[in-house]
Amino acid sequence: MALIVQKYGGTSVADIDRIRSVAEKVIRVHDAGNDVVVVLSAMAGVTNRLIQMAHEITGDPNSRELDVLLATGEQTTVSLFCIMLESMGCPAISLLGFQASIMTNTAFGRARISEINADRIQDLLKQRKVAVVAGFQGRDQEGNITTLGRGGSDTSAVAIAAALKADMCEIYTDVAGVYTTDPNLCDKARKLHRISYDEMLEMASLGAKVLQIRAVEFAKKFGVPLQVRSSFTEEEGTMIVDEEKDMERLLVSGVAYSREEARITVTNVPDRPGIASRIFAPVAEAGIVVDMIIQNTRKSGLTDVTFTVPKADYQKAMSIQKEVAESIGAEEVLGDENIAKVSVIGVGMRSHSGVAAQMFTALAEENINIIMISTSEIKVSCIIEEKDTELAVRVLHSVFGLDAAA
Amino acid sequence: MALIVQKYGGTSVADIDRIRSVAEKVIRVHDAGNDVVVVLSAMAGVTNRLIQMAHEITGDPNSRELDVLLATGEQTTVSLFCIMLESMGCPAISLLGFQASIMTNTAFGRARISEINADRIQDLLKQRKVAVVAGFQGRDQEGNITTLGRGGSDTSAVAIAAALKADMCEIYTDVAGVYTTDPNLCDKARKLHRISYDEMLEMASLGAKVLQIRAVEFAKKFGVPLQVRSSFTEEEGTMIVDEEKDMERLLVSGVAYSREEARITVTNVPDRPGIASRIFAPVAEAGIVVDMIIQNTRKSGLTDVTFTVPKADYQKAMSIQKEVAESIGAEEVLGDENIAKVSVIGVGMRSHSGVAAQMFTALAEENINIIMISTSEIKVSCIIEEKDTELAVRVLHSVFGLDAAA
Repeated sequence: MALIVQKYGGTSVADIDRIRSVAEKVIRVHDAGNDVVVVLSAMAGVTNRLIQMAHEITGDPNSRELDVLLATGEQTTVSLFCIMLESMGCPAISLLGFQASIMTNTAFGRARISEINADRIQDLLKQRKVAVVAGFQGRDQEGNITTLGRGGSDTSAVAIAAALKADMCEIYTDVAGVYTTDPNLCDKARKLHRISYDEMLEMASLGAKVLQIRAVEFAKKFGVPLQVRSSFTEEEGTMIVDEEKDMERLLVSGVAYSREEARITVTNVPDRPGIASRIFAPVAEAGIVVDMIIQNTRKSGLTDVTFTVPKADYQKAMSIQKEVAESIGAEEVLGDENIAKVSVIGVGMRSHSGVAAQMFTALAEENINIIMISTSEIKVSCIIEEKDTELAVRVLHSVFGLDAAA
Repeated sequence: MALIVQKYGGTSVADIDRIRSVAEKVIRVHDAGNDVVVVLSAMAGVTNRLIQMAHEITGDPNSRELDVLLATGEQTTVSLFCIMLESMGCPAISLLGFQASIMTNTAFGRARISEINADRIQDLLKQRKVAVVAGFQGRDQEGNITTLGRGGSDTSAVAIAAALKADMCEIYTDVAGVYTTDPNLCDKARKLHRISYDEMLEMASLGAKVLQIRAVEFAKKFGVPLQVRSSFTEEEGTMIVDEEKDMERLLVSGVAYSREEARITVTNVPDRPGIASRIFAPVAEAGIVVDMIIQNTRKSGLTDVTFTVPKADYQKAMSIQKEVAESIGAEEVLGDENIAKVSVIGVGMRSHSGVAAQMFTALAEENINIIMISTSEIKVSCIIEEKDTELAVRVLHSVFGLDAAA
């Protein structure tokens, strides 16, 4: 008999009927003798609706109070879910973030879990109750309600699994697992049976939306066995595990893409020490995350600096750079929102050279123009024109041998 | 400068526009130098909607979990309200039941407040912040969320005012104060300027819906100066205070009515010791509250027992009594849902005899049949046929000199 943490996302608990079928699933696992902790998100659409309510009041709602508001979403799901379990004869207790002692720092809206005291959950499991924990939320040292940011329920589940030393953390979602690439874009995408934490981290940070990055980091740090699977089928999902020596060693495990970045170029920047900080410090101060940066020296003493930012921050970043450009004597600021990032990921790259070259050749053969390049030990990313995204993903998926058998 | 607790009901915060006008009201009082604690209910309709969601799952939702669900209603209002205050430049902090240390017993759905530690609120007031407390909710010793039952936010407000030794507890609602009777039924109803705690208690328990009974009990016990007033006008409301020697001493202060009871009669009950307990113990065990009881001996050794129960419990009480009647050898069980209770209330009655007689005469003159009678030191109640309610209220209002000048 095992201790299993199961996390169900918003679409899995979107209405009373779905809550009922998830409850049946949970009861089967519980009745088989396992200890079960369930972590739930808000019902699909609820979080957006709450944010919209706050925005009817002001474009910039107080962050402490916004967290109090958003926390009602998961509170609603866990109570309804326990009412369902109890009505089916299965003993259950809901725990909100503060009741489950999910301690975080005070960064409202993007809090990080610092500690979980699992005593209360352990007690409930000893009494053979199902513990149903509200995902996404915690409390800080002063008892304020905090939330963990988008997708935070994945992190809640993994952190609880780590604190309980659970045998398995299962993330139930609306897809059947982790795919070699987005099946909506490429019909030859294959579901992976296993993937390493590191590969999953790159996949997640490069645009695959199946898991929150911090959840994967947590799982890796504490060695939590993680499985991603569908809440609508009984199909086996994808195991996310430590890299093993005998792991299926593909050169490339997946192709990811993102259309959520925009590019900014500051031209003819006087190339002096400290100039990079003049450009990037104000961007960082505005809370904008810069992803890729490249610098091309065009002619003696002048350089072009190009970087990418999230599309949502593009306008703000442009206006900041226009001021910067003036103050440092640069020529002009150019921007482009119509870009995409395609990436190939694989732990196999570590021991094989040539993946990058193979990627560039494949893209060139399709006349896809590469605008920027960035690499790490286990991935290569290229910024291309947005219109080429789909073609690039399919070509790379095929070139690196990921296509499903026809 | 005063310490003022203001409570706003569901209709006062029913949408963003109303929340804005309540916020403006609060800011005016705060800017005048007062310390302000705001207690809020759920937005109108929300609590019913949540109960309905739970009832989609089961007719008998788990009571602990139902409280977790219902508590989201007030949580939503307090966070939106603080977002509003902060966006208007007024510093504010929301406190949920557990954060405000509103300690209760563990009677989910109808918990009673045992203690409030007001330190946190005091701290916020010292920082010149508006403390916005979720009404209706508390926590028990084990950290479970509890709710206080319908109208519980009134009790929250009065209890907080008592704990803070506030100068005033203002209950803002959708009526302008406490009236001599229901203005919807009798267009000569007058707003009272002052009423004693005891009279208000009788009014509330006899059907006037302006304040929760427990809130008045609390206010009386701790001597909290209470004012009921409209959130939609600036008009002065009704003060509810200790009975004073120089108080406007009307014989009768108000006429109340309720159409929420039903009558049950068990006929030809063998008149033996212990028979009353055979009849009423099973009703009490079913959690049904019996209001009036009368017993008429019809002929030697046999008696009729008549009592009233809330209409919502009528069917259950009838089926219980049918079993009881059989087991004790009574003749039959008769029921009537078409009854109403009209009551006249006034501390002045204590020193004047004849109020009851005057009431019976007035009703008789209108051919209104009196089915049952019950009296206390400061009220007389009659059960009449439901169809006579409006006429009875108007006649009594007039007979006891309460009509507004034409």
